[in-house]
Amino acid sequence: MKRTFGKGHARTAFLALVSTALIGANSVRAEEGMWPFDHLPVAAMQTAYHFTPTPEWIRHVIQSSARLAEGCSASFVSADGLVMTNHHCANSCLAALSDKTHDYFRDGFYTRSLAEERQCPGMELDRLDSISDVSAQVEAETRGRSGNAYSTAMQAIESRLTKDCLQGDAAHWRCDMVSLYHGGQTALYRYRRYQDVRIVMAPEQGIAFFGGDPDNFSYPRYDIDLSMLRVYENGKPVHTPYLQFDINGPSEHELVFTSGNPGRTERGLPAAALAFQRDVINPTVIALLSVREGMLWQYARESAEHEKQAEDELFSVQNSLKSYSGTQTALRTSDIVERRAKEDAALQAWIDADPARRQEFGTPFATVDKAIATQRRLFTQNIALRMALDGLAGEAMTLVNGAAERLKPDARRNAGYHDAQLGEIETELGAKTPVYPELETTSLALSLTTLRQLLGTDDPLVQMTLGHDNPDTLAARLVRETKLADPAVRLALWKGGQDAINASSDPMIVFARRLHPLLVILRDRMRDEVSAPLHQAEGAIARARFAQAKAEGRLDALYPDATFSPRLSYGTVRGWTQNGANIPAFTDFAGMYHHATGSAPFNLPQRWLDAKSKLGLSTHLDFVSTNDIVGGNSGSPVLNREGHAVGLIFDGNLPSLAGDLYYDITSNRAVSTDTSAIIAALRHVYDEQTLADELTRGHR
Amino acid sequence: MKRTFGKGHARTAFLALVSTALIGANSVRAEEGMWPFDHLPVAAMQTAYHFTPTPEWIRHVIQSSARLAEGCSASFVSADGLVMTNHHCANSCLAALSDKTHDYFRDGFYTRSLAEERQCPGMELDRLDSISDVSAQVEAETRGRSGNAYSTAMQAIESRLTKDCLQGDAAHWRCDMVSLYHGGQTALYRYRRYQDVRIVMAPEQGIAFFGGDPDNFSYPRYDIDLSMLRVYENGKPVHTPYLQFDINGPSEHELVFTSGNPGRTERGLPAAALAFQRDVINPTVIALLSVREGMLWQYARESAEHEKQAEDELFSVQNSLKSYSGTQTALRTSDIVERRAKEDAALQAWIDADPARRQEFGTPFATVDKAIATQRRLFTQNIALRMALDGLAGEAMTLVNGAAERLKPDARRNAGYHDAQLGEIETELGAKTPVYPELETTSLALSLTTLRQLLGTDDPLVQMTLGHDNPDTLAARLVRETKLADPAVRLALWKGGQDAINASSDPMIVFARRLHPLLVILRDRMRDEVSAPLHQAEGAIARARFAQAKAEGRLDALYPDATFSPRLSYGTVRGWTQNGANIPAFTDFAGMYHHATGSAPFNLPQRWLDAKSKLGLSTHLDFVSTNDIVGGNSGSPVLNREGHAVGLIFDGNLPSLAGDLYYDITSNRAVSTDTSAIIAALRHVYDEQTLADELTRGHR
Repeated sequence: MKRTFGKGHARTAFLALVSTALIGANSVRAEEGMWPFDHLPVAAMQTAYHFTPTPEWIRHVIQSSARLAEGCSASFVSADGLVMTNHHCANSCLAALSDKTHDYFRDGFYTRSLAEERQCPGMELDRLDSISDVSAQVEAETRGRSGNAYSTAMQAIESRLTKDCLQGDAAHWRCDMVSLYHGGQTALYRYRRYQDVRIVMAPEQGIAFFGGDPDNFSYPRYDIDLSMLRVYENGKPVHTPYLQFDINGPSEHELVFTSGNPGRTERGLPAAALAFQRDVINPTVIALLSVREGMLWQYARESAEHEKQAEDELFSVQNSLKSYSGTQTALRTSDIVERRAKEDAALQAWIDADPARRQEFGTPFATVDKAIATQRRLFTQNIALRMALDGLAGEAMTLVNGAAERLKPDARRNAGYHDAQLGEIETELGAKTPVYPELETTSLALSLTTLRQLLGTDDPLVQMTLGHDNPDTLAARLVRETKLADPAVRLALWKGGQDAINASSDPMIVFARRLHPLLVILRDRMRDEVSAPLHQAEGAIARARFAQAKAEGRLDALYPDATFSPRLSYGTVRGWTQNGANIPAFTDFAGMYHHATGSAPFNLPQRWLDAKSKLGLSTHLDFVSTNDIVGGNSGSPVLNREGHAVGLIFDGNLPSLAGDLYYDITSNRAVSTDTSAIIAALRHVYDEQTLADELTRGHR
Repeated sequence: MKRTFGKGHARTAFLALVSTALIGANSVRAEEGMWPFDHLPVAAMQTAYHFTPTPEWIRHVIQSSARLAEGCSASFVSADGLVMTNHHCANSCLAALSDKTHDYFRDGFYTRSLAEERQCPGMELDRLDSISDVSAQVEAETRGRSGNAYSTAMQAIESRLTKDCLQGDAAHWRCDMVSLYHGGQTALYRYRRYQDVRIVMAPEQGIAFFGGDPDNFSYPRYDIDLSMLRVYENGKPVHTPYLQFDINGPSEHELVFTSGNPGRTERGLPAAALAFQRDVINPTVIALLSVREGMLWQYARESAEHEKQAEDELFSVQNSLKSYSGTQTALRTSDIVERRAKEDAALQAWIDADPARRQEFGTPFATVDKAIATQRRLFTQNIALRMALDGLAGEAMTLVNGAAERLKPDARRNAGYHDAQLGEIETELGAKTPVYPELETTSLALSLTTLRQLLGTDDPLVQMTLGHDNPDTLAARLVRETKLADPAVRLALWKGGQDAINASSDPMIVFARRLHPLLVILRDRMRDEVSAPLHQAEGAIARARFAQAKAEGRLDALYPDATFSPRLSYGTVRGWTQNGANIPAFTDFAGMYHHATGSAPFNLPQRWLDAKSKLGLSTHLDFVSTNDIVGGNSGSPVLNREGHAVGLIFDGNLPSLAGDLYYDITSNRAVSTDTSAIIAALRHVYDEQTLADELTRGHR
C-alpha cells in the first residue's frame, strides 16, 4: 500500500522529517511527471494522445478533488458531499470509532441513512480553491539574504501571506505557501477547509488489504482498498462539483489521469544528497523501523486487544519499511548516484562557462556538500530525539514549544506555528484519538532505549533525557502519571500558554520542558546550517537548470518535485515485464478467489465467500497504469478523458518504490481498484444499494 | 561483549553461515596478527619487545589453554581442572540449570564443595594436543580438480585424515582439518576432548554484564565477565598443565599475550567480496536481526518468565547487531573497498607480468567475481531458508539430512557428517537444552513470516514451506505437535536412520522432509558454484601473495586468517584517543560505583553495594590492550611474559568491530577483566575463599 504522506499521530511521522526536503526540477520523458494544475503539459498530451484538457475540464477536476490533511488524496463522487478514498486512509477513523463490541477496522462500517454516518475524530479534508504565484514577492524580500536572515525573511513572508489569505477565517480556509522548483517558484495554495468528515462505508480489512503485508507493493493484486466518507457543514452534507462514477472502469491502453497530492519526490537531488540518503539515512531508518516492526509484531500477538491496538501502527511501519527498503535497493543497485554526479558536474561546468552565470548561480554544489556535512554530524541526535518525542511525549513537546513560539511575533516564529496554523494544532491537540497506555509505554520505552543505543550512555543528551531512570521505568512513570491522554487537559495547557506550561507539574510536560532547550538548538542549527543553505543552493541549481532548459528550448518539459499539493499525472492502463514474465494490466474476481488459500492474510471475509455466485467472475478488480505517483496519492481518483472516475489509486508496484528519486516507464506502475469492482461489491456483496445508486446517479 | 563464534543452539547461528568463509593471508604491522602456535613471529617480538618465547613457554601455554565447542576460549587455572572463561560463555549452562526457584543466570552460581558443582548440559571443552601439517597430502589429492570434483576430493581427504587421527576414540579426541592461508596450508589439529564440564562459580549477571547492552562494546567498562568451570573425567577432576593466576594484574604498557580461538577474520577479502558484504549481506542481516531484536525485546517485557526465556537470545541478537552494524559502519566510512580493489588489481598485474605465474595462479579475481554473482542470486533463498531451519526445525533438518548423509560412503558426505563428526551431532541432539514452546513458536512464526517477506508469496519455496497455512498457524501447529523437544525422541530418530525418518509422522520431521530436497539443491549449488570456486580462487590469491611476499623478502610477516583454532596475539596494555579524548587503559572499582545510577542496567547487585567498604577502590577492574582479537576470543586468558594469567578477555571496543576485516592499532582495543579484580571479588564480595585459594595456590 502506498505509504500516505502523513504528519498526524502516526509514530513513524518522525521519519518524514529526517531528510530535509530537497525539491528538484525535472526534465521529462513521456508520461513522467506530477504536474501542477496551472502548468499542465498540454502540448505533450496533445502530441502523444491527441487530447487537450479544456479550462472547464481542468477546473472541474480541481474542484472535484480533495486532500486529507493526514496525508491522503480523495475525490467527491456525488453532489451530496460523498467522498471516495482508500480504506487505509480511514484507518485511524475506523480504529477510533471502534469499541469493545465493534471492530470497524476489521469488520467494516456500514450505514443505511445519514443519521448513521459518524464523524471521524480529527479528520480534515481540504479542497483546492485557488493558486497564486507569489514568486516575485518572495524574491524581492529574500534577495541577498542567507542563513538565519533568509529563514527569518521567509518566515515573515509566509506569516503575512497566509494571514492575508485566510482573511480571518481559519476555520473555513487553509493557506499553504508551496515552494516549487526548489524555490524557483513560490505559490500560495488556498483550500476550502472541512472539519466535519463522516464515515459512510468501509469494507472489511480482509478485502481492503487482502494479501496483507506479503502482497503489499506487489502485483497482481486483489484488493478493494476503499472507504466512502461524507463531508458535512453545519450538520448537513456539503454540495460541491463531483466526478461522475463510471461503473465500467477503464480499458487496456486507455489514457487515464490521476488527480492527487503526491507527497514528496526528490528527483533533482544532487549526488551528495543521494549518497547521504544511501549511506546514512536509509540504513539507519531501516534498522530503526525493523526493530519497531519486531516489537509491534510481538505486541500484537499478545492478545486480541493488543492486536487491535497495534494493527494501525504495525501496518504503517511495515509499509514504510518496504518503501525505504525498495528505495535503498534501487539506490544500491542503480548507477543513479554516479549518473547524477556527472549531471551535477556538467551543470556546474555550464555555470562556470559564463561569468554572468557564475555571478548569478555561484557554486551551489559546494554549498550542498557543506550542508550535508553538517547534516551528517547532527543526524544521529536529530533522529534519536525526534523518535523519542512521539505519541504523548510529542504532544507535550508541541505544547511546550507552541507556548514558546507564541511569545514571539508571528514573523519570527518557526514553520508550523504562525497564527494561521494555530487552528490546525488546536484541532490535533483536541482530537479524541485513542491512547492505549500499554502501547504508549512500550513505544516510548523502545524509543528511549534506541536513543541510548544510538548516542551512547555517556552522551549529555541521553543523560538529560534519562536522568537516573532507565528507559523502561521512565516511560512507565511518564505514561502512568501524565494527564495528557485527555484532550481537554491538552487544550487547557495550550490555551494557558507559557504560564500554564511553567506551572504544570504533569511529568510529560516536565520531561518536554527539560528537553526543549536541546531541541531548539538542534532545530535552529538544522534550519540555519542545513535546510536554509540547502534550500538556497537547490534554488540556484533549479534556476540554473531552468535557465539551461530555456537556452536549449525545453522549458515545457520541466515539472516541480512533489510537495503534497494537487497535481495531475497522465498515463495509460498497461502491464509490464518482470524477470521475463508479462504482468497483465488487470486482475479479476476469478483471480481473487483463486488467490484465497483460506489462511490469513489470504482469507476472504465470509461475505465474499458467500457472494461468489452473484459476482461476474471476469469483472475487473485491480489494474496498473503508467501514471507517475508516489505516497500521498493514496485515494486519488483515476479519471478518463471525460473526467469520469474509472479507478481508485491505492498502491504502486515494487519498482515504483524508487519513484521518490526517479521514474522508469518500463517498470514503474500505479495500482488502482477498478470502479467496476467497487460497484459490483456494493451491489452484490454488501447490498449497499442506496450508496451504489448515489454513485451512479451522482446524488442521493 | 565480543560475540562468541558459535554454532550451537543460538538462533542467530544461521548468520555465521551466510557468508562463505574467505580466508586470507595478511602481511602485518606491529601487534597485528593472530598467530598459529607453530608459526609465531618470534623475530618481530624480539625486535619490538626483546622477548622470545621458549619452546617450553609455548608448549605450556598451548596445554593450559582450551576451547569451548560452542564458540569460546578458556584456560586451565589450577592443577585440578579448574577453568576460567567468561560469564557469557556459560550463559546457556546457567539458563539450563535454572528452574522455577533458581535463576543462576541472574543471581549467580556458587559452590562450597566439588559435590555442589553441576554438569553443564551439552558443554564440551577441547584442549589442543598436536598440530600436523597435511598440506602436501591435500595438494597431491586435489591438484587439477575443481567444482564438484574438488569438493569430493576434499571430503574424502578430510574423512580419511580425521578418522585416522581419532584412532577409533571419538569420545576422547577431536580432530579438525584446518585450512590456513586460503588453503595455502592445511593443518590437522588434534584436541583432547572433554564432555563433562561442570559449573563451579558464576557471579551475578548484574556485575558480569554491568551496563548491559548500552555499555556493550563501549569503554570505559566495569564488568567482571567471569565464570569458573571444572573439567571432569570418570567423575573426577582432570589434571592438566595450568596458568599461574597473577593476583596483581598487568601494568600499563606491559607486554601481554592472548591465547585463544579467534573465530573468523576475512582480512584478505577481495574487493568484490567486501562490496558484496557491504551492499547485500550486512544490510539484509542487520534488518533481519533488528526485527528479531524488537520481537524479543517485547517478548521479554511480557512476564518475568518470558524475560528469562528470551534473555539469552536477545543478548545474542543485540551482540550480533552491534557487531554487524559496527562492521558496516567501518565498511561504509572507510575506503577499504577501493583500497582493496587496487591491491587486487596490483596482485593480478604481478601475476600477469610473468607467463609462469600466469600459468600457476591464473585469473582468480575473475573467478571470485563469477562466484559472487552466483552467491548474489542464491543469497535471499539461502538466508531465508537457513533462518527458518532453526530451533526445533533445525534439529529436525539435522535428523533428516543426517539420515540421508549417512547413507553415503563417508568420503562422499558433506562437511559435518563424516563418521568422525557424528559423535558431536549426537551430543548436540541428546543435550537437555531447555525448549520454551511459546518462544519457539514465536521465533518460528517470525522466521516463516520473514521467509515470505523476503521471497514473496508466489515463490515456490514459500509455497512449499507454508502450503495452505500462514506462518502463525504453521508454527503453532508444528511446535505444539512435535515431540522433538525431548532429547530421547531426537536420539531415537537419529539412531533409527533413514527408516525411522521415513516412518516418522512427527510434524516437524514431515516439515523438514518436505524442505530437504530444496535445501540439498541450494547447498550443493552453494558448495559447487560458490564455496569451492571461491576457496580455490582464494587459495590462488593467497599463494600468489605468498610468492610475492617471498620474492620481496617479507614472508615472516604473514599470518593466516582466524579459523576458530588456537592462536597467540601479542600487544601492550594501552588506552587510545577517541574524538580527541584520551581513553585510559584501566578502570577501577571507584569508577564502577560512580557508574552505578541504580537503574537497570546500571544497578549493581546488592552484594556489591554491601561490599563497597571492603574493596580497595583503586583496584583495577577492566583494562584495554592492543591485542588483535575477534569473536571466539571470548574467555581467552591474557598472559604476561612469565606465562601467568593477568586478565580475562571479554570484549573489544567499538572500533574493534571492524576487526574481522582489518586491524587498526590506533583505535582497535581488546577489553579484559583484570585478575586483581577477580581475586578481590572472590575474597571480599563472594566470600569464595576456597576458590580464591585454589587460584593463588594452583591446586585445591
